[in-house]
Amino acid sequence: MIETDILIIGAGPTGLFTVFEAGLLKLKCHIIDALPQPGGQLSELYPKKPIFDIPGYPSVLAGDLVDNLMEQIKQFQPGFTLNEKAETIEKQEDGSFIVTTDKGTAHHCKAVAIAGGLGSFEPRKPLIEDIEFYEDKGVEYFVKDPELFRDKRIVIAGGGDSALDWSIFLSNVASEVTLIHRRNEFRGALDSVEKVQELKHAGKIRLITPAEVTGLNGAEHLESIDIDENGAHRNIKTDYFIPLFGLSPKLGAIANWGLEIEKNAIKVDNSLDYQTNIEGIYAIGDVNTYPGKLKLILCGFHEATLMCQSVYNKLNPGKKYVLKYTTVSGVDGFDGTRKEAEKAVVKSID
Amino acid sequence: MIETDILIIGAGPTGLFTVFEAGLLKLKCHIIDALPQPGGQLSELYPKKPIFDIPGYPSVLAGDLVDNLMEQIKQFQPGFTLNEKAETIEKQEDGSFIVTTDKGTAHHCKAVAIAGGLGSFEPRKPLIEDIEFYEDKGVEYFVKDPELFRDKRIVIAGGGDSALDWSIFLSNVASEVTLIHRRNEFRGALDSVEKVQELKHAGKIRLITPAEVTGLNGAEHLESIDIDENGAHRNIKTDYFIPLFGLSPKLGAIANWGLEIEKNAIKVDNSLDYQTNIEGIYAIGDVNTYPGKLKLILCGFHEATLMCQSVYNKLNPGKKYVLKYTTVSGVDGFDGTRKEAEKAVVKSID
Ligand SMILES: Cc1cc2nc3c(=O)[nH]c(=O)nc-3n(C[C@H](O)[C@H](O)[C@H](O)COP(=O)(O)OP(=O)(O)OC[C@H]3O[C@@H](n4cnc5c(N)ncnc54)[C@H](O)[C@@H]3O)c2cc1C
Ligand SMILES: Cc1cc2nc3c(=O)[nH]c(=O)nc-3n(C[C@H](O)[C@H](O)[C@H](O)COP(=O)(O)OP(=O)(O)OC[C@H]3O[C@@H](n4cnc5c(N)ncnc54)[C@H](O)[C@@H]3O)c2cc1C
Repeated sequence: MIETDILIIGAGPTGLFTVFEAGLLKLKCHIIDALPQPGGQLSELYPKKPIFDIPGYPSVLAGDLVDNLMEQIKQFQPGFTLNEKAETIEKQEDGSFIVTTDKGTAHHCKAVAIAGGLGSFEPRKPLIEDIEFYEDKGVEYFVKDPELFRDKRIVIAGGGDSALDWSIFLSNVASEVTLIHRRNEFRGALDSVEKVQELKHAGKIRLITPAEVTGLNGAEHLESIDIDENGAHRNIKTDYFIPLFGLSPKLGAIANWGLEIEKNAIKVDNSLDYQTNIEGIYAIGDVNTYPGKLKLILCGFHEATLMCQSVYNKLNPGKKYVLKYTTVSGVDGFDGTRKEAEKAVVKSID
Repeated sequence: MIETDILIIGAGPTGLFTVFEAGLLKLKCHIIDALPQPGGQLSELYPKKPIFDIPGYPSVLAGDLVDNLMEQIKQFQPGFTLNEKAETIEKQEDGSFIVTTDKGTAHHCKAVAIAGGLGSFEPRKPLIEDIEFYEDKGVEYFVKDPELFRDKRIVIAGGGDSALDWSIFLSNVASEVTLIHRRNEFRGALDSVEKVQELKHAGKIRLITPAEVTGLNGAEHLESIDIDENGAHRNIKTDYFIPLFGLSPKLGAIANWGLEIEKNAIKVDNSLDYQTNIEGIYAIGDVNTYPGKLKLILCGFHEATLMCQSVYNKLNPGKKYVLKYTTVSGVDGFDGTRKEAEKAVVKSID
């Protein structure tokens, strides 16, 4: 059982910054995310694109913002359960919670912060017969660990940045990379498209367009795929098939936790602390809704901060909290590090 | 009469970021501040100190954060009325407002955002007879424009960073710099203290400690000051006397605008849009209060953002606003500039 003070569901910018604000209050955090990496929408959907409305950043790449947040929180040593979906919650008699994932990992915590964004990202699956049978037996919707494909034959399908970028990356890992797309045109960053073109000419990526995968074959594990190339049938031997058709977020199991839901988002008390209708469960960032709500990154930061205060006050009843400025008091990490402003000296001049 | 959509009182981080969020909604802003420079507490009280809790910045100097905010908003061309205090407000029949400063500058606007922090910064004045008479006639509490002191004799009083830093800076501008402090010890950044020591030895700063200014003399303009140096009386000829004993913030005239005040802060509706009890007047950042309020920079950013939405909705009744991501829609400045993410290309690979 993983033990923590605040269990955060969702490693998007809101969940990540929660670790920092909780840390200032000496509360420990653990984060669950369905994706293989932290950053939520920023890492998964637009890591190389600039954001212009992060206060104090005239422009920052989404991926860099995530890196900076990870750097900012690292001294508070958050735990991570990645590649798993929070699925069930049980409130204990003492008011604490046990949250369990689809893979059975259990987390015991004093408060739950749902920072689930638009929901856990689920891959859009192509409509191919028996595809579920081949999941984990040759069909992968994410590249969680590139090493899985070392010296294997792989077929990637898709026409966007993910398909392009993973084809490029894996062309140095896999023994054979085939990229299939139902159109001749790809949609992505110019340099990605050009790089694929180059790798195609160098014989490092085989491109088959316009084409669609129509069948999967193999007894125990995927062995080959059938494709329809411009009307003609073709069979291709492969060890892996990686369809990258985008992700669609799903609130999923959380929708059944007894929380008040409105327009696919969780209603919270924005007049105080972003708590849901269940005491001890908060919802912050894109996942919540209240009058005037804006689904913006900077709003999640504020909501996380007020929420942490509320958790602190509940866990320390009667203790009067005095707000401390980080500039004045410094920041003490759980790893023993300390960040602080240079102290003024008191010194006579002679 | 200065015309604008949103008149912002206070050029602290909250007021500055308001310009950006308003600009995204095509609303024009003008800012009034009592201080000679933007940045509020950050510029005036701790420009060279690091802040650790700005989301996405593991550490940022307060002065740099202000510079970045100024850079972020510049394409929305905010107007500034600096060195003046917002003093009176009159609501017009059409719901607009006229706000006038202590120097008589009038501003006409559709909505007012009070982002006044802890209040307008007022200098702590030393208790010296007739000091008010000499204000603007040789006594200055701020260095608004160093050129005023070019080739003049000046006396600075104080023992902190401001007194040290202005003594250093003006030693290259004024013909004669005297620094007076009632103790031998100065309290400030180590390098400032050392630099003053150096300049003293080089004969560029005259240091008199422990000493206090006890009188001011001159018919029309300051001509000399009396000091008590360790019990002994002394007279020093000077053109300017600049006492730098710190600033204390005062809510001031705003307290009489009919707003609900609680603990020296303005009550707002945090369940919606941070509006005060007077329609069209909002209060954001340190200056407001509501249940759970935290006086943090990041909270002011969120409050400013929700407030701008509310102003937009009121000024455009019936118009359905659809939130646009800056990453997706880009940012169009009022100066004709445009910031945008590189567009994806749609391109065939052959
Ligand atoms: C193309 C694009 C451009 C954008 N541009 C901007 C912009 O310029 N400015 C701006 O402010 N915002 C922008 N946004 C919106 C911004 O990305 C979101 O507001 C932000 O990501 C919300 O952060 P979050 O932490 O609340 O949620 P998310 O980033 O959505 O992260 C939520 C995480 O929770 C995980 N999760 C959810 N449910 C579960 C579960 N049950 N178990 C495990 N994990 C779960 C998800 O996998 C996900 O990783 C943009 C969004 C997109 C798509
Ligand atoms: C030493 C120190 C360290 C700090 N460290 C941190 C930290 O680590 N993290 C953090 O989040 N916060 C910190 N703070 C607090 C932070 O500085 C404030 O939360 C922030 O400045 C508030 O911003 P604001 O824009 O609301 O107001 P302010 O920065 O106070 O700006 C308000 C401005 O309004 C002007 N004004 C007010 N009334 C009038 C009027 N009638 N007419 C004209 N002008 C007027 C004032 O002159 C001032 O310039 C610290 C503060 C101090 C003093």
